[in-house]
Amino acid sequence: MKELFAAGNTGSCPLPISKYNTVQLGHGSGGKMMNDLISNLFIRIFDNPALNQMNDQAELQVNGSRLAFSTDSFVVDPLFFPGGDIGDLAVNGTVNDVAMSGAKPLFLSTGFIIEEGFSLGDLEKIVESMQRAACKAGIAIVTGDTKVVNKGSADKIFINTAGIGLIEHDFTLGAKKIQPSDAIILSGTIADHGITILSQREGLAFEAPVESDTAALHELIAKILAAGGAAVRAMRDPTRGGLASALNEYAEVANVGIRIAEERIPLNKAVAGACEMLGIDPLHVANEGKLITIVAREKAGAVLAAMRKHPLGEKAAIIGDTTKDDPGLVTLRTKFNTWRIVDMLVGEQLPRIC
Amino acid sequence: MKELFAAGNTGSCPLPISKYNTVQLGHGSGGKMMNDLISNLFIRIFDNPALNQMNDQAELQVNGSRLAFSTDSFVVDPLFFPGGDIGDLAVNGTVNDVAMSGAKPLFLSTGFIIEEGFSLGDLEKIVESMQRAACKAGIAIVTGDTKVVNKGSADKIFINTAGIGLIEHDFTLGAKKIQPSDAIILSGTIADHGITILSQREGLAFEAPVESDTAALHELIAKILAAGGAAVRAMRDPTRGGLASALNEYAEVANVGIRIAEERIPLNKAVAGACEMLGIDPLHVANEGKLITIVAREKAGAVLAAMRKHPLGEKAAIIGDTTKDDPGLVTLRTKFNTWRIVDMLVGEQLPRIC
Repeated sequence: MKELFAAGNTGSCPLPISKYNTVQLGHGSGGKMMNDLISNLFIRIFDNPALNQMNDQAELQVNGSRLAFSTDSFVVDPLFFPGGDIGDLAVNGTVNDVAMSGAKPLFLSTGFIIEEGFSLGDLEKIVESMQRAACKAGIAIVTGDTKVVNKGSADKIFINTAGIGLIEHDFTLGAKKIQPSDAIILSGTIADHGITILSQREGLAFEAPVESDTAALHELIAKILAAGGAAVRAMRDPTRGGLASALNEYAEVANVGIRIAEERIPLNKAVAGACEMLGIDPLHVANEGKLITIVAREKAGAVLAAMRKHPLGEKAAIIGDTTKDDPGLVTLRTKFNTWRIVDMLVGEQLPRIC
Repeated sequence: MKELFAAGNTGSCPLPISKYNTVQLGHGSGGKMMNDLISNLFIRIFDNPALNQMNDQAELQVNGSRLAFSTDSFVVDPLFFPGGDIGDLAVNGTVNDVAMSGAKPLFLSTGFIIEEGFSLGDLEKIVESMQRAACKAGIAIVTGDTKVVNKGSADKIFINTAGIGLIEHDFTLGAKKIQPSDAIILSGTIADHGITILSQREGLAFEAPVESDTAALHELIAKILAAGGAAVRAMRDPTRGGLASALNEYAEVANVGIRIAEERIPLNKAVAGACEMLGIDPLHVANEGKLITIVAREKAGAVLAAMRKHPLGEKAAIIGDTTKDDPGLVTLRTKFNTWRIVDMLVGEQLPRIC
């Protein structure tokens, strides 16, 4: 890949976050404000080794087994959208968070918070969609809880899922394992989910239909680990905050520079058009069925080949590499061969995206 | 105990639940309507052996270990109340659901759904309260998620927790193990939590202060299992729906009659007075730090003695027994020595109690 990046760059882009007294939409954005809230409040108070890893899942030792444990709440609006609904999103989202540790997802819990007056027919559709997604992912939804709140106290339905998986390999994935000169592999097109939700909510129509990419990625991950083994450094699904936020977190935690090439990033044409029209950077838009993996360069080709053989990785691409230059910084070489800094999402681009 | 109940009784109390098109507050009540929703929707669609047990936790086999897994969402209003807040409630509630299987609770996940504009100071208080409760219970909060929704789309803050515990004994607790002539032991006073929330919400003041009983019960449970072993048939915390609903579920699942004696049921004086004034049956009111356990009668005395030595079981009492007569029915001998049927809560007594 070295030839991709003939020149490095320097510089930094400080964006001071002012102090708030109340929770802002941006605190749930998946970007910088959420990271601040997590670090300054949750990590500071809950302080324990598993949480402090700041991965999307905790790795736990239980009775001699290595378990992965993760949770996600889903508040997406609208509930039903092209390509999926809140039900399969809630299953796939937590399956993915568990699987990103390399674990085999096994069991899910689910907690429903339902607004009084919500359609029982829609609830049934959502539960059926959850079950279809669970069957497809080979996991079982084994325990649950239902709360109903008065009309006006919640918007229709919120779903939490938590998941348990078993880690069977003997190495650990994580941002701290990333080294300079690793390859950055993206499993497919970005921004499909976020643009779908946005277009549904705003009643926008584009030249070609867009649909959410919600999918369970654990089988693709199994292929990646089989091909790359311990050369696979880290894996993450770039959901809220998009590819840009996920890469910025990696750059910061691993203290490396990250360089990506715009023309290498797969993007559906309709999504690209929508982003351009709306003035949205697709790097900041949420994905629900994509992953990035950082792989030692000697295994990058083998991992990429394995990914491309899986339906969810057909468009996988090496989009860049890590470097010892500019630690903490993500830079993008544009199609015009100029360089720009790729920031973490700061405020909120689109609330209730998932 | 036999002398407690000189006469049996017969009869049934069918209460047909009409069909609804939309979710009613009663569907989250912990009573009959919620049971219908769970059976007719969740169990029917998610259908798997762990869920179908209909316990408050799933028992799972993972890599040779027996795990307990449970989840609960907390939507209590007000967020802060005498004796606790939504934070310790969310930790203790899931610790208890995990522990009722006899498991040692180990790890919790937490998912926050926060309304835009919620006080960051109150969020900090809640998170600190969660951490205090976690430390007290000897567990760690290891993974989490934060969603922020627009102002008006949720009421202040909702918290989901999911918990993992390890089952180290070699027997199984469950309603299906209950036999006729078992003893029913209650760990202490009932209705404290529900009456506290109600009085806060309605601005009621009683002659003596009332406060929530929220507490983690796993240490008390360890004492019960040490004293009773496999003679302990089942254990449950009577939260939403109260003691009445929990006993009705046992009677139905185990197909036994359950007879309890009113004068044996511990009740704080102020709570009793409040219930009388408000016309509320304390048997239907939620508890957050109490348990009932069904124990083979030969071990009931030993279990009771062990419970009374623990601070959370000081007022424990044998409140009744199971019988082969009147299967499915819960009856109460009143202080006036008459008998009445104790029904499961049907509609909703008080939404957002936990």
